[in-house]
Amino acid sequence: MKIHGRAMRTIWPDTDQTSIHVIDQIKLPHRFETKPLRTSGEAAEAILTMVVRGAPLIGATAAYGYAFAMREDPSDANLADAYRRLYETRPTAVNLRWALDDLRARLTPLNPSERFHAAWQRAGQICDEDVEICRKIGEAGLALIRAAQKPDKTINILTHCNAGWLACVDWGTALAPIYMAHDAGLPVHVWVDETRPRNQGASLTAYELGAHGIPHTVIPDNTGGHLMQHGMVDLCIVGTDRTTARGDVCNKIGTYLKALAAHANNVPFYVALPHTTIDWTIEDGVKEIPIEQRSAREVTHMTGRLDDGSLATVDIMAPGSQALNYAFDVTPAHLVTALITDRGVCAATREGLKSLFPERA
Amino acid sequence: MKIHGRAMRTIWPDTDQTSIHVIDQIKLPHRFETKPLRTSGEAAEAILTMVVRGAPLIGATAAYGYAFAMREDPSDANLADAYRRLYETRPTAVNLRWALDDLRARLTPLNPSERFHAAWQRAGQICDEDVEICRKIGEAGLALIRAAQKPDKTINILTHCNAGWLACVDWGTALAPIYMAHDAGLPVHVWVDETRPRNQGASLTAYELGAHGIPHTVIPDNTGGHLMQHGMVDLCIVGTDRTTARGDVCNKIGTYLKALAAHANNVPFYVALPHTTIDWTIEDGVKEIPIEQRSAREVTHMTGRLDDGSLATVDIMAPGSQALNYAFDVTPAHLVTALITDRGVCAATREGLKSLFPERA
Repeated sequence: MKIHGRAMRTIWPDTDQTSIHVIDQIKLPHRFETKPLRTSGEAAEAILTMVVRGAPLIGATAAYGYAFAMREDPSDANLADAYRRLYETRPTAVNLRWALDDLRARLTPLNPSERFHAAWQRAGQICDEDVEICRKIGEAGLALIRAAQKPDKTINILTHCNAGWLACVDWGTALAPIYMAHDAGLPVHVWVDETRPRNQGASLTAYELGAHGIPHTVIPDNTGGHLMQHGMVDLCIVGTDRTTARGDVCNKIGTYLKALAAHANNVPFYVALPHTTIDWTIEDGVKEIPIEQRSAREVTHMTGRLDDGSLATVDIMAPGSQALNYAFDVTPAHLVTALITDRGVCAATREGLKSLFPERA
Repeated sequence: MKIHGRAMRTIWPDTDQTSIHVIDQIKLPHRFETKPLRTSGEAAEAILTMVVRGAPLIGATAAYGYAFAMREDPSDANLADAYRRLYETRPTAVNLRWALDDLRARLTPLNPSERFHAAWQRAGQICDEDVEICRKIGEAGLALIRAAQKPDKTINILTHCNAGWLACVDWGTALAPIYMAHDAGLPVHVWVDETRPRNQGASLTAYELGAHGIPHTVIPDNTGGHLMQHGMVDLCIVGTDRTTARGDVCNKIGTYLKALAAHANNVPFYVALPHTTIDWTIEDGVKEIPIEQRSAREVTHMTGRLDDGSLATVDIMAPGSQALNYAFDVTPAHLVTALITDRGVCAATREGLKSLFPERA
């Protein structure tokens, strides 16, 4: 995607293989800075401190971190040690484990002297594969946006949280169809849910849409129902962190409320996903997916810019009151109009998913 | 209600009739301070700057302001001038106009020398009448909370925004049944929606529940759907700024999303209201109630306490991104389980309302 006209990925290697570069996402949306990572320790630290975030980007960063580790010490002992150190940075991230497992399996049989080069090359492939998955999601979703267009009208799309290119290597998942529609000249406008707590909408989604030049408006999470009631939303597209075999989706808290409003007002509600988020072992997302609780501080405290441009964090809560922070909720499949995957679009049903993934039937 | 054990109203007169006192709500929840008002100008300023807010409290403050004006200059000319000056502070507030009209009609036929005393007395009555209306709403709603109690279980009640005693003279509307339930020894716990923008839940509702000693937990507006899906909410009670003749309710933006979630999960959704909010001239709230847009700054900026306890305001938005701020939304009557009024509980239908207000039939 583009940052003010300049095409970028969220992670890219130096040609001399001494370092990689990432966008420092801790500083977004207030500052745009890139950061070089030169060692396995720096890569681990970047994941741990959320300089990089988003499952695909974490996986890609860990892969390069593993490559650095093989340059630092390509021994069998370090193959195990580095795996452990990188894995422990964010142990619940599916893509992190997947990337490390993939590399370890490829590196183990090699001569230590070959390991760095092989790891570096494979890390680049992992990035390219993620871009390709997102591109395919984008193409599949673009057809749905095109279909929603009314002559001479802006196409208003609502999204929740950040499932954009900042979470991936390029394109994003839920935002990929929107970037493609914009680049194809379709008149899209995005309603960006602020997405409390953590405000990924107001900070990350608004940032990346703005930097690419896509018209958008940030709204409080409370607003989407009113907009849908008044015909101001043509379709919704959101991401998912985990998708069940029958099409229930687990995404950032509040997604379910928007799906209810879309259903009540006949607004199509699409969920975009790489096939890797499908958990074929579970059916009923509400009953079977445990929902992570995160720190109450994400609810009670808010970081932003003071008038002089410096950053500050304020406590917005009534003193003494407690807050609770569920990170995700589950939207039952019957509220999902269709799933947009890297293999195409399907109904949010067991049959729909099996039609795209017959090897699972 | 009580502030840490001390019974208080939000507005009270000095016995020597030289001043009234209000809670400075601009400083809540970060500081609790009261403020004396001694002149009509100070009363108008307090309304204008939102030192006092909430329709009933604005009406009560304006009534005392009109009394001060009659002490300053009880002439016919000032009867007209003071009306205008007070009315212009918040021209859309229904109770403000109602209180001023009431006083002007009573004061006009009087001898100027009698006007201050009559106005002062009537302002006190207006306060007492508001307390009585809220008390009756509380009693009607208490029966519904009692009915929702399961043996030995906490009664979990979700509310949105602030329809509490800080907006009124005492008790509040939506919170009145909750205060009565707590005071009657029922084990209530309140889920307090943060209520973006302006955060009236995290600041005012959390503050007043906490000060009175009622167990409560602040949650992001996104969370209620998940809680209802998991049986963690026994009932919802919210307020309304305007109620149509068929029972549609217009309340703080986001109320509609909670009503949808309650309906989908068989959670009773009650709306508490003084009869004065019923607009008998309209039926279809979605089509007929114009929704006010407020400053985007309420979305983009957030005020809270820095670590040293001082207050600061930060901009949380991606630089350059725009925000939109609809203040209210409309919840259609079919999503409302019942209306809780100062004349008792009724179905949210034309017939239900007419059964309580036969004079309107």
